[in-house]
Amino acid sequence: MSAVVPDAPRGPGRPRVEEFDGLILDAALAIIDEGGDVTVSAVVARSGVSRAALYRRWPSLTALIAAALDVGRTVPPEFPEDGDLREAVLDSLTDGASAHGYSEHRFRQRMRLVMSDRTLQKAYWSAHVARRRLPLERALRVAADRGELRADIDVEACFDAIAGAVYYQLVVRGDRLDAPETRERLRSALDVIWRGMTA
Amino acid sequence: MSAVVPDAPRGPGRPRVEEFDGLILDAALAIIDEGGDVTVSAVVARSGVSRAALYRRWPSLTALIAAALDVGRTVPPEFPEDGDLREAVLDSLTDGASAHGYSEHRFRQRMRLVMSDRTLQKAYWSAHVARRRLPLERALRVAADRGELRADIDVEACFDAIAGAVYYQLVVRGDRLDAPETRERLRSALDVIWRGMTA
Repeated sequence: MSAVVPDAPRGPGRPRVEEFDGLILDAALAIIDEGGDVTVSAVVARSGVSRAALYRRWPSLTALIAAALDVGRTVPPEFPEDGDLREAVLDSLTDGASAHGYSEHRFRQRMRLVMSDRTLQKAYWSAHVARRRLPLERALRVAADRGELRADIDVEACFDAIAGAVYYQLVVRGDRLDAPETRERLRSALDVIWRGMTA
Repeated sequence: MSAVVPDAPRGPGRPRVEEFDGLILDAALAIIDEGGDVTVSAVVARSGVSRAALYRRWPSLTALIAAALDVGRTVPPEFPEDGDLREAVLDSLTDGASAHGYSEHRFRQRMRLVMSDRTLQKAYWSAHVARRRLPLERALRVAADRGELRADIDVEACFDAIAGAVYYQLVVRGDRLDAPETRERLRSALDVIWRGMTA
């Protein structure tokens, strides 16, 4: 991470925009991981990318920090329509890689930062979290349309209940998702929610 | 807050232990509210209470910080056995005062600190959160015993699902519990969970 600058514009010609992106995000993440304050000056100094280039790509520092916190996270794939959706959901909840896409350390850093700054929290929500919800919301809607779940379910509220049970383990209990007892507790919670979606 | 020292040992004789407690907790909270690091030296300096007295009462700084973060929060009263339990739960979830017992600012400070320190998170969980869960867990158990909820419900997992939906609003969406749309979303989530507990 600290050695990004010497590698910066490599090969002939100007580096491509995507290379700048990577340098900027890596620099911001390195600062976050050290517990430092992410400022434009600090990112410029660390990335070797010019202030002008940084502002062209990231008009707001908040958007840059939100994007840095999302590095390594991806939108989950669509749920298959012919499998056991409940089991697939349980797997996706308790499989650290797919639930978070990155380390618990990074997750805790993210929560620490968003709880310190509601503007960042809202930016992270709208630019990153909201789109990651879509595959499961779509799968619940499809299942409702096919009569496998109640036709009247509020898929957003169902998502909040399911994801909320997971967040409760991480932010209140302070438990790890890969611990067997956490998985059992989440299975129990999901059973109740699922029964409520089908009954 | 910053004026606690002059008021310290007042009246004749030694101040009572409870007075020390209040001085120490107030000092720790004032430091937290300023975003400072809570250390024994800082609390001693700010509270006017001796280091020896502080250690007698709080053998660990972690336990002291956890207690400070809990100031103003109380264990909720038992749920009445003859009312509409679901409505009472919804009210308790969305009524800021009873859900948190203190300001959103303090809530966000607490989350920021526990996400930075898992030992503190676990101390806060076992000394404070766990006992606040009991009234609702007991009420669910009573309702299950009376046949109003399924006999086989896992009250701990049900609590996690219900409280998790609330935490999701606060730590992921960054919404306020007193906003009408948040309350509607929580009502929808609680409807699903409740149906799952009765079906």
